[in-house]
Amino acid sequence: MAADRDGPFDQKYFKKVEVITLRKPKIVILGAGYGGLMTATRLQKAVGVNEADIVLINKNDYHYETTWLHEASAGTLHHDKVRYDVRDVIDRHKVEFVQGSVEEIKMDEKRVILENGDIVYDYLVIALGAEPETFGIKGLKEYAFSIVNVNSARQIREHIEYQFATYNTEAEKKDERLTIVVGGAGFTGIEFLGELTNRVPELCREYDVDYHKVKIVCVEAAPMVLPGFDPELVNYAVATLEKKGVEFRIGTAIKEATPEGIIVAKGEEEVEEIKAGTVVWAAGVRGNSVIEKSGIEAMRGRVKVQPDLRLPGSDDVFIVGDCSLIINEEINRPYPPTAQIAMQQGEVCARNIAALVRGKSEMETFTPDIKGTVCSLGEDDAIGVAFGKKMVGTKASFMKKMIDNRALYMIGGPSLVLKKGKFNVL
Amino acid sequence: MAADRDGPFDQKYFKKVEVITLRKPKIVILGAGYGGLMTATRLQKAVGVNEADIVLINKNDYHYETTWLHEASAGTLHHDKVRYDVRDVIDRHKVEFVQGSVEEIKMDEKRVILENGDIVYDYLVIALGAEPETFGIKGLKEYAFSIVNVNSARQIREHIEYQFATYNTEAEKKDERLTIVVGGAGFTGIEFLGELTNRVPELCREYDVDYHKVKIVCVEAAPMVLPGFDPELVNYAVATLEKKGVEFRIGTAIKEATPEGIIVAKGEEEVEEIKAGTVVWAAGVRGNSVIEKSGIEAMRGRVKVQPDLRLPGSDDVFIVGDCSLIINEEINRPYPPTAQIAMQQGEVCARNIAALVRGKSEMETFTPDIKGTVCSLGEDDAIGVAFGKKMVGTKASFMKKMIDNRALYMIGGPSLVLKKGKFNVL
Repeated sequence: MAADRDGPFDQKYFKKVEVITLRKPKIVILGAGYGGLMTATRLQKAVGVNEADIVLINKNDYHYETTWLHEASAGTLHHDKVRYDVRDVIDRHKVEFVQGSVEEIKMDEKRVILENGDIVYDYLVIALGAEPETFGIKGLKEYAFSIVNVNSARQIREHIEYQFATYNTEAEKKDERLTIVVGGAGFTGIEFLGELTNRVPELCREYDVDYHKVKIVCVEAAPMVLPGFDPELVNYAVATLEKKGVEFRIGTAIKEATPEGIIVAKGEEEVEEIKAGTVVWAAGVRGNSVIEKSGIEAMRGRVKVQPDLRLPGSDDVFIVGDCSLIINEEINRPYPPTAQIAMQQGEVCARNIAALVRGKSEMETFTPDIKGTVCSLGEDDAIGVAFGKKMVGTKASFMKKMIDNRALYMIGGPSLVLKKGKFNVL
Repeated sequence: MAADRDGPFDQKYFKKVEVITLRKPKIVILGAGYGGLMTATRLQKAVGVNEADIVLINKNDYHYETTWLHEASAGTLHHDKVRYDVRDVIDRHKVEFVQGSVEEIKMDEKRVILENGDIVYDYLVIALGAEPETFGIKGLKEYAFSIVNVNSARQIREHIEYQFATYNTEAEKKDERLTIVVGGAGFTGIEFLGELTNRVPELCREYDVDYHKVKIVCVEAAPMVLPGFDPELVNYAVATLEKKGVEFRIGTAIKEATPEGIIVAKGEEEVEEIKAGTVVWAAGVRGNSVIEKSGIEAMRGRVKVQPDLRLPGSDDVFIVGDCSLIINEEINRPYPPTAQIAMQQGEVCARNIAALVRGKSEMETFTPDIKGTVCSLGEDDAIGVAFGKKMVGTKASFMKKMIDNRALYMIGGPSLVLKKGKFNVL
């Protein structure tokens, strides 16, 4: 074979071609969440096919809206509304899509180990997203559900349905089947509660269950609901959810989850059991465990990145989204991981990689631009701050849907908004 | 109090009134299934309000179509389509409806003990329906589902959905979650299999499950499918279901049900485990256990009634439907309990009670008139014999729907057919 090749070509010329081929760098993006997909869609515009190869790797062939999963989990929005095919938003002439689970990054070899193979890179973007953080609380991993992805969301929906479906089949009725404990009164916990309170009356009708038998308990270890939110808005949220049947147990730590429910601290010494057919843990996330597995220094899987989003000490590895940690200098605390920040990081990351590919070394610094935060309380109610204004009710709910649609627009343009957008605003 | 009463009334006159009151007999019907509801709707026409009081007692405030439950169990027909309010089909000026569970009949006191009270009768109709018969097989009651009522049907539907929803959440996939064992290749088993094979592709789409991972196994102890059916039709049914993925294990006895599946006999000595996330027992029914609790002689809860449908040795207690046992003299074996027979019995029972109320002692003899039997194989396929003709496919399926609609018509007239009838025939 070598003889064949040498035949028509001049050996010198052949080598030259080889060198040119080697100079086209390979950009590998791990994860098609908000950060990874934004990086990919921006890079495919910023970089020409002759400048670099772009590979996007994701566990599933679809992207899902993490910020909508509480709806799929409660059963108020079908999970197919919450996801779309990755290949629908990438330019497949420019970005190669590989479906696979990342197991480890070998940075000394510039290589990513997948469950089903491995791939080398010149530039790497780690956008692997978050995992639930259970803080070592006993039994949580085994007996509580977490709102983490499409699989877990529809499992929660079906688990709750099964509890309701089973209730009337038992000669001795177990009211605790109809108790749902939500661990955490942060953003996800509150948004999930909003959907749940809307879903429960439907479940009662479907399974001939007396509405008054259902209990929804929110247990939060911190002394407050929605820390960081304006207290007036928090009061509105708590009053709204309480009116819809939620019992708040604030300043109450979960000690253990069991097959029967949870055990919470009561005062200094005592404990109390709350029996519940369903326990959903929504009290915290951490970065992806692949970070630690790959020997990268991190705090709960989150890496304090350089201002240009690169891994400290590295020239070619970027980290965006929930695996990155950015300090809010004003209050000297980390920004909470949000879709908003992940998408903004994706844009900066794409520009910085494009610069590197073109041999430039000056990097853009990332600064979050928080446009607003709206926390949904169900289909037609919400609280939030946007454009510096506080708002509640249908106005805030409308704003929330616009934010959701904006994320679709940023990644997939108007056609994706038309396909997956939220328009049932009034 | 007695002094008060005696005051304004002449003692003699008062007694006379009492006697007249006593002469209006009370007819109590236990159960609003096919037999009980037919008896009630026929009696309300046959007997005037001055002739008798009629009380209908049922556990739920709704009647359900037992013969459609396999559809609700598979999830191919919503359970609300399978039931209707009892009060919609009875004349409430003539029939009093009491919701309650029957616990025991004290025949020496002519009294029925309910969970929530008790009631005396002059004439009693026992139409309490069937219960699953597990033949003492270990673990079946605990680990297998039975298609018995609306509650159990929707629980089966949700259990299967939950297995599919859970499959993709587990790091180590358990294919046995997607295995459904149906115990019994009789009427209910086969009809349920027909619906299941239609439902599975939908479930695969909903939960991103590979269709080839799903297994449906029908285990039958008897050496044949659908005993009593024409062999040519049985072959059609088996071939159809096998083509749609059902694996038949005929002549195979279930020895035990476990949390992991079932254990079946293999040859004389050996056993084999079939791991399955869902086991549905559809291999037999018995009469209601209230029969035995009340000291009535019966075979598996079924009472060999007199030709006029009365309990042997009793003048005022009738038994219709699945708690009655009628011998088919031609083959000297009992007729299988069917909706068709229960409804026909209800008509005769109503006429016999009307006669008794009017002081007549000559009773009509019940003879089943089997117009046809059609076994559904799903939405648009079936096998059956009607008007002496064998039929398969869409023709048989059409006939099945007409039979279903006829039951509605017999009990609730054209308005009930319009509301609950099956018209999606082609």
